[in-house]
Parts: sequence; C-alpha cells; structure tokens
Amino acid sequence: MKILKDKDYKVPGFLVSGTRCGIKKKEGAKDLAVIYSEVPASVAAVFTKNAVKAAPVLLDMERVKSGKGRAVVINSGNANACTGDDGLKKARAMSRGVAKALKVKEEMVYVSSTGVIGEPLPVDKIINAIPELVKNMREDGWKDVEAAIMTTDAFPKMVGVRTDIGGKDITIMGIAKGAGMIHPNMATMLCYIATDCFISPILLDKALRKAVDASFNSITVDGDTSTNDTVLALANGVAGNKPLTSRSMDMGKFQDAFNYVTKELAKMIVRDGEGATKVIEINVKGAAGKSDAKKAANAIGRSNLVKTAFFGNDPNWGRIAAAAGYSGARVIPERMDIYFNDLQVVKNGLCVGGDWEVKARNAMKGVEVKVTVDLNMGKGDATVWASDLTYEYVKINASYRS
Amino acid sequence: MKILKDKDYKVPGFLVSGTRCGIKKKEGAKDLAVIYSEVPASVAAVFTKNAVKAAPVLLDMERVKSGKGRAVVINSGNANACTGDDGLKKARAMSRGVAKALKVKEEMVYVSSTGVIGEPLPVDKIINAIPELVKNMREDGWKDVEAAIMTTDAFPKMVGVRTDIGGKDITIMGIAKGAGMIHPNMATMLCYIATDCFISPILLDKALRKAVDASFNSITVDGDTSTNDTVLALANGVAGNKPLTSRSMDMGKFQDAFNYVTKELAKMIVRDGEGATKVIEINVKGAAGKSDAKKAANAIGRSNLVKTAFFGNDPNWGRIAAAAGYSGARVIPERMDIYFNDLQVVKNGLCVGGDWEVKARNAMKGVEVKVTVDLNMGKGDATVWASDLTYEYVKINASYRS
Repeated sequence: MKILKDKDYKVPGFLVSGTRCGIKKKEGAKDLAVIYSEVPASVAAVFTKNAVKAAPVLLDMERVKSGKGRAVVINSGNANACTGDDGLKKARAMSRGVAKALKVKEEMVYVSSTGVIGEPLPVDKIINAIPELVKNMREDGWKDVEAAIMTTDAFPKMVGVRTDIGGKDITIMGIAKGAGMIHPNMATMLCYIATDCFISPILLDKALRKAVDASFNSITVDGDTSTNDTVLALANGVAGNKPLTSRSMDMGKFQDAFNYVTKELAKMIVRDGEGATKVIEINVKGAAGKSDAKKAANAIGRSNLVKTAFFGNDPNWGRIAAAAGYSGARVIPERMDIYFNDLQVVKNGLCVGGDWEVKARNAMKGVEVKVTVDLNMGKGDATVWASDLTYEYVKINASYRS
Repeated sequence: MKILKDKDYKVPGFLVSGTRCGIKKKEGAKDLAVIYSEVPASVAAVFTKNAVKAAPVLLDMERVKSGKGRAVVINSGNANACTGDDGLKKARAMSRGVAKALKVKEEMVYVSSTGVIGEPLPVDKIINAIPELVKNMREDGWKDVEAAIMTTDAFPKMVGVRTDIGGKDITIMGIAKGAGMIHPNMATMLCYIATDCFISPILLDKALRKAVDASFNSITVDGDTSTNDTVLALANGVAGNKPLTSRSMDMGKFQDAFNYVTKELAKMIVRDGEGATKVIEINVKGAAGKSDAKKAANAIGRSNLVKTAFFGNDPNWGRIAAAAGYSGARVIPERMDIYFNDLQVVKNGLCVGGDWEVKARNAMKGVEVKVTVDLNMGKGDATVWASDLTYEYVKINASYRS
C-alpha cells in the first residue's frame, strides 16, 4: 500500500470541485462542493443515530437503499437541520439542480449540509452557484472540495492510498471535516471516500461499517452524534479489477487500505478537536468483554475532569479510575492497572508510589499521550482517541454563531 | 414551615464542630468535622453508584444497615479513595478515634472523606485533632462543620427549616458541599441532614430517597457519581413527636420540609458549579414517559455545546434539540416546542422566526435561565438544573491538584 502525496490526490473516474456560493459569512470562503463519478458507482453510507436528523440525511437514507449513485453535493455554513418540510424541499432542490447540470437522475445525487442548525437554508445561493461548480470540476480538485466542507476545522483532512487489487492499481481517497465531534455532543462530522475499485454495494457497505467502527466510532460516544453526521463511500469500478468477493485475500487488502484511510482521518479530527492541545489515546485492556472495554474507554475519553487534567499536564489517575468506575463496565477496583505511555502509575488499584508524579507529568507533556487501563477482568479491549478540554474549546463554542 | 435564619442554625440534641487537622494545604483552613447526636438516632443514607467506591463509603454502606447511629466524622483535602486495604483501615481508625472520644460504639460512627483521589490518607493528623474537635462541639457549630467539609466550593451551603409535626416543633437542618457535580463526572457531593423528628429508620430511608431523587439526582446524570458521594440523614427523635406513620398527613408535611431542604441545597450546588456564571433550569414536558423526560433533560444539561452556548448568551436551540435527539428519549422532531423562559423559539420543530434571536438573547442574560422543551409525546416531565461551561471551569479543573 502506497500513501499518496498531496499532488497525487485524484481518483480515476471522479471529477470534483469546490466553490463559493455565499452562505459562509467570511468573504471569499468556499462553501459548496461536488464529487462526481463519470460512471454509476456503488454507494454505501452510515448516518447519525440522532433522532433529530437533518433534511439531507433523511434524503440520503432513502437514496442509499439503491446502493447506487453518481454524485454528492455538499454545502457548509448551514446545516439544513431542524428545518422541517421546507428543509427537505430545499435538500431535494439542491440534488435536482446538480442532477440537471450533470445530466444524471436526481435519485443518483446525494446531499450533505453542515453549519448552523435551525436556520432556513438559503438554497437560491446554492442553485445559482451550481453552473460554476460543475464547470470547474476536475480530477485533482480535492483540495477545493475539502476547503468547501470545512467549518471550525483548523486544517484540512485528506488521506489517499494506492494498493494492488487483483493485478490492478486501485486508489482510495478520503476527505473529512469535523473538529468538535471528539467531544460528547459534537459538531458535525462529514467524510467522503472515493475509490475506483470494482466492488458491489453490499461489500462496500460491509467494508464501510467495519472501517467506521474502528475509526470514527472510536473517537466519540455511541449514540452521541450530531444531526448531520455522514460517512459516504463511492466506488466506481473504473480500475477494472475483478469484482471483490466476500472472503478473498483481495477483500482483506481492500479493507486494510480502507481502514487506514478512515483511521487516519479520525485521528486528524481528534488532533483538530476544538481548542485541543493534545491527542489522548485511551487503551482499555482486560475488560470482561469488548462492549465493556468500549464503555470504559468512552467514559474516560468523555470525562471533562479527565480532559481538563490532561490540558493541565496533571497525572490525576483517580479521575481515570473514577470514570472507568461509573462507565457501566464491570470493574473490580483492586484489579485495575493504569499506565501513562509506558509508565505504570497504578497497580492493583493502588498508586505505585515513589517519584511517579514527576515521571508521569513528563510522560503527559507530549502532544500525543497514551493512557492504558488494564481492568484485568477478561480479554476485551478497545481504543478511543480523545482531545483535552481547554479555554479555547469554551471560547469557540460560546461564540460559534456570532 | 419556617425557614431558619443563619443565627438559628441548631437542631435540638445535636452537637457539632469543625476544626483544622492539617490536611488541606491552605494555612488555617478547617478540614475536619463531627456531627454528634446526644441520643441514638435513626440513620439513612444513599451513596455513589460508582463501582470505584472510596473506603469511607464502603464502611458506611455496611454500618447503615443497622439504621442507627450517633455521629459522623468528615475530613476534607483527601478523599481516601483508590487506597485499598490501607484506606479501609484508616477509615475505621477515624471512626474508632471519634467513638472513643464520644464514648459510643465504633459501629455507631459514620465516616466521609472528600478531596484528592488516590493519595494515602494522613490519618495521624486526624487522630491527633479529635480531642479538640470533640471538645469544641456545640449546638450552633454548623458553620464550622460546613467550612470543614468544603473543597472547591465558593460559598457555604446550609438550609434549615422548622415545621409542626403532631403538635411539636421539629427542625430539619441540611448542609452540603460540592461544586463540580453538575458536570458530567463530578467532584464529590456530600450532604448531611440532621433532624430532631422522631421517625423510624425505614421511613427516614424512604423520605431520603424521595428527596434525593427530586434534588441531587436532578442535578447530575444517573450513574455518573464520584467515588465518595454521600447523602446521610440522622433523626434523633428529641422533639418528642408521635412516631410518624407511612401515610399520615404528618409524614407528608415532613416529606415536604425534607424536600425543600434537599432541593435548595441542590440548587446551591449548581449555582456554585465550578466556574459557573448561571443556573439553567431545564424542564422537559410531554415526554412519552418519566424516564424519557429524565433522559432528555439530563442530555441537555450535560451537553458541553449547550453549556458553552449559555455561557455565551447564544440562544442556539439547535444544540438543545440535538441533545434531546440523541438522549435516547422518544422524539419526533416535528413535535418539539422549545422556550427560553416564557419565550417560545421553536414550534413543531421549527424556529418561530421574526426577531426571536434578539429576544432570546435577552431572555438568556440573567443568572437564572429556564429552558422548557415540550416533546408533545405524552405526559412525562422532569426538571434538571445545570450550570454553564466556562473558562473558569477549565482553569479550576486543569490545576486542581497543583
């Protein structure tokens, strides 16, 4: 597997672009993007579990049942969420406008929106910008797409890889936006993955769900998703490989490459956590089961007291133990071991003593810190990535709409 | 029911005091307290649901089974949590020391600790201070008790009421500490309630659980309790009223007075939320059931995005709708109504439009703001009190141990 450099970001058979339609307040900021496959593509997607779903999510959930698609249109600056029938009409109008310009069926066009919730979508701005959006499409326009979907993101999130599947070179390109979702109740996370691999919608859906579980679902807490979260994959088959089959070696290779792309994007989102100064990798081992491990890791990663302690380089392992304790995972305090990076600070539920604190403070000082909690209850393990909680987080979120 | 003034804080038959034993770092700060009943009292208590329980909690859980007690000893500055067998021995030593000095049985003495987790309790300091602690006991020493149990609290939390039960005046006095517990995974909350009412341990336990459910359990999220949380009530019967019976009018009066004390204390804790600038009262109405109402209210009160929006006086109702949406409560977005104080901003899931934003910003500016979410799904309702999330919260919790 080869990791692509920025200049090589393109996927055969995909034309993409990003432009300004005028929704974002900032002068000149791009806020409208399209991803277009020159031939019909297999499509798979996962969406927010929030009961309050944005209009474009409701639309896409219907359309993805076909397993097919030609394009995705995305706007930023307005989430088109909590907008009722009017929102649904406007989401449809977005897709219709793009479908017309691309001369494809409306049902083949997917829609995403991200930004402020509950304000009417200024859809006319979008419709007016579609001709230019489509005219500008090109194979290497991914950076413009990324720029047009970002909101509070501090940096773009793009990963491309190339690998050999059945004697053919195939490309997997992923882009994402999101900087708040590592927090309990996050800003929107969007991710699009385009590949020229030939794969059926059913297998693409399987691969996507596996990859999301080990990446985006490991930087947040189950169920705690925004109104708009969407991860959507398109595979157009232009590489001309033999169709992948369920248990083939090639399917394994494809999955590995796919996982790499989503995991790297997920980590970038944590690194860009609103106001974050560091990425905390939380490894829970020895849980009574996989689900216990996830519960404990999520509770630790979600704890405001843990997050603020990390911001202050305070090795307050008691807060970590307490979070594991209330997570719902089966915990016997006397069995718990805790490590900062490779430094053990707790053994059988008790502090190791000595000069542990000075050493632990040093271990915490990097921008990437690993915490390992061994519950010594069984064989379940899970990894979650979290950011710290800082002044800057409060600042960003206290004034997001202003 | 009469609300007592500060100078009238005393309960017949109870002697109390607070002193300095030297655990808190701050020069002169009180950190050891005792509450003593001159006669055997009925005792009831509720404790943290955290799987990781501090040593004194484990001890008290055993002792409260008797339904009887004479005294409580409390230290601050060290939580005696995650301290294993050594911690249990020290908790027992604290109770033994106080029992000796008071000439009561060791099993009649309850213990609480609050402060840093995971550090060995300097129990010798406590033992050495017990003679003075006991010597200083007096009826009106409640302020000293409160001072000795506070940690990050910005102000003391004390409520006393007097009411007539079966022709006798009875007093209910409550004190509490805790400033972080309104946040998802909180600092320790301690509360002690002393009354001279004559009531059986079983009825006292019932009354306590009812009161806690409508107060302390409504300012936090179920299961998310610290290692040390304790609410303990002592009733010594010195008032000489006829024993209360389960469904009598007098029992109702007692419950009302008890509820008043715990609810006022709970609200004080929110008002003193670490770094908080305002108290948000979240009323969820029209939920499909009581448990749905609690889920939605808790999710809203716990959301960092909602909390920061309130700090910034940003009427971002979308975040409130989103939190209700992921809470697990049954929600149909098109039915949701949202109000800030009495101002309706969302009707049937849609913004009311017009100049709502200016009005809503104004509605949010007070130190107490009410949010009402009507799910229009049924008859379940619940109220939760939450604080906002501020720079100061981050500051306090990033440097708590320093």
